[in-house]
Amino acid sequence: MTRAHNFNAGPAALPLPVLERAQREMVEFEGSGMSLLEHSHRGKTYEAVHDQAIALLRELCGIGPEYDVLFLQGGASLQFAMVPMNLLPAGKSADYVLTGTWSQKAFSEAKLVGKPRVAADPSVDKKFTRIPRQDELKLDSDAAYVHITTNNTIFGTQWHYLPDVGKVPLVADMSSDFLWKPFEMNKYAMVYAGAQKNIGPSGLAVVVIRKDLVAAGRTDIPVILRYATHAENNSLYNTPNTFAIYMVRNVLEHVKQHGGLAAVEKQNRAKADLLYGMLDAEPDFWRAPVEKGSRSTMNVVWRLPSEELEERFCKEATKQGIIGLKGHRSAGGIRASLYNAVPLDSVAALCAFMRDFRKTA
Amino acid sequence: MTRAHNFNAGPAALPLPVLERAQREMVEFEGSGMSLLEHSHRGKTYEAVHDQAIALLRELCGIGPEYDVLFLQGGASLQFAMVPMNLLPAGKSADYVLTGTWSQKAFSEAKLVGKPRVAADPSVDKKFTRIPRQDELKLDSDAAYVHITTNNTIFGTQWHYLPDVGKVPLVADMSSDFLWKPFEMNKYAMVYAGAQKNIGPSGLAVVVIRKDLVAAGRTDIPVILRYATHAENNSLYNTPNTFAIYMVRNVLEHVKQHGGLAAVEKQNRAKADLLYGMLDAEPDFWRAPVEKGSRSTMNVVWRLPSEELEERFCKEATKQGIIGLKGHRSAGGIRASLYNAVPLDSVAALCAFMRDFRKTA
Repeated sequence: MTRAHNFNAGPAALPLPVLERAQREMVEFEGSGMSLLEHSHRGKTYEAVHDQAIALLRELCGIGPEYDVLFLQGGASLQFAMVPMNLLPAGKSADYVLTGTWSQKAFSEAKLVGKPRVAADPSVDKKFTRIPRQDELKLDSDAAYVHITTNNTIFGTQWHYLPDVGKVPLVADMSSDFLWKPFEMNKYAMVYAGAQKNIGPSGLAVVVIRKDLVAAGRTDIPVILRYATHAENNSLYNTPNTFAIYMVRNVLEHVKQHGGLAAVEKQNRAKADLLYGMLDAEPDFWRAPVEKGSRSTMNVVWRLPSEELEERFCKEATKQGIIGLKGHRSAGGIRASLYNAVPLDSVAALCAFMRDFRKTA
Repeated sequence: MTRAHNFNAGPAALPLPVLERAQREMVEFEGSGMSLLEHSHRGKTYEAVHDQAIALLRELCGIGPEYDVLFLQGGASLQFAMVPMNLLPAGKSADYVLTGTWSQKAFSEAKLVGKPRVAADPSVDKKFTRIPRQDELKLDSDAAYVHITTNNTIFGTQWHYLPDVGKVPLVADMSSDFLWKPFEMNKYAMVYAGAQKNIGPSGLAVVVIRKDLVAAGRTDIPVILRYATHAENNSLYNTPNTFAIYMVRNVLEHVKQHGGLAAVEKQNRAKADLLYGMLDAEPDFWRAPVEKGSRSTMNVVWRLPSEELEERFCKEATKQGIIGLKGHRSAGGIRASLYNAVPLDSVAALCAFMRDFRKTA
């Protein structure tokens, strides 16, 4: 097999050794005469995998005992609703910083539950080309929480500072940059992430939430939508997505074996530097719209001088096994997602292709 | 590999050829240079799988165009909440027939949303040993819907008649007997099922719902929890559990190649007949509590003369590669789940073990 250079925005590339392990273990898991898919979620064999995944996440991210680690279904999109349903008491408001499509969706769901406020909206003509500065945040010290989206997959921006939100709990959707580098968990009251970017297949959301928020969560909502339900049952209240959790366990083991999050960050910075360097060398041809201080290390977006050229660019790249470069349908242009499992070699291959393309364009 | 005789209640046995196919295709899918897990849910490769799964389900079950087929996350447990959130308008009630733990859970979630009624409750001392008769159902002709659980995994009962609910929409949780035989979809307004029994791995719920119910659904609930959201987007509003849908596609293809649901039913009846015949031959030793007319073809439950014997039974069975026989923690006793992918050979092996056990007990 010639492995594709996979720049998909999610579901995205997974580490090859993790896929090979899943292949080896697919029909029979650990000599049990059956697949992991066929094991009960209440049996010792599966529970060991489940607990290892949680323990590895705690270890790699330095998550203390004051937090619950939950594996839920429904992706980040269900979290957009669960966050206000659980954490927004009647009569209270929450602050949302709008930095792109996903934070707008989170805000829309919150509006159906309570009365959230816009704490900042840096969009110009609906183009979100930067993250707001601290002095632009208009925060309410009485808010139930502040919600941010740490990386914006569609517009290619990323928070490179931690906003000062005072004593208000900070809730972060980290779907597209969770585990891209070490982070200070204790600065956040809650982080959540769809798994299908940096840590596993789709169909799973990771939620890390402070226990006092779980305990204070609303109880007038469906049982299945309460964080407390899942926290009290170690994410085994109902049948979880066992395969996805198994894959996350394996991805985390792979990360640990390869130096942990510090090594992941180094690799991710090298990839982003290489590609942004390429764009900056010829800014009239490769047009990167994002302010330099807000550039995403995970999703690099740019335009070409015409839509025809952009189309040709994606088509020719695909022919050379470089896939997933088309920008989101709502934004257009080109996007290369450089998640953890995308090797530096793939970025080098992309850059080589870009040099060739530039010569003929 | 010696394949285990897997009587797990769910996640449960999958057809071996389906597992072997997943193994072959795990690292590279259809010559694409990547795993299906790495494909975008918005790309042609994945969408073909997604659409095939829906088309196969429509074909095998005879689902007409007046129904939407949805693949959602959160399992049946999230449907317990989504059904009333969507279908129970303010001020209206819904009828719930309580036949076991799962229908009670569905009822509890409905109580948090509206004011559902108990239409029948055949439990004696919390032991649900039969399905209520038609003349026991106290139905409200003004109910928003009637909710039943067609098969009760824990207590081993199953509906063997279709209740007459007049013009009120019938909603059925078929989690543990969906696709066990052909059924008349047009008698139901909606059916739903967690995938991890008869049709695939965990982390997926199949929902088949009449389009008029979708259209009339409430719009004051979170967008992600509306059936309309998923129906309008072909279950691609947010990233679905792509691997589980791929597996369901493969299971359905396997069913089709082996004679469709009529053949599945024949096989399932043979398995259930064999095991119940065994129990009935010595009713003082193998004590089957369920009324004969309510016996489940999917989950066969029984007791032994003592808990000590039950424990020994499970332990010795496990040693012989016969696994998953322990009854649900809330019910005790023995349970053998005979889902579609459990071969007749496994039931024969179980019966042989039971004969040997009987001699020494």
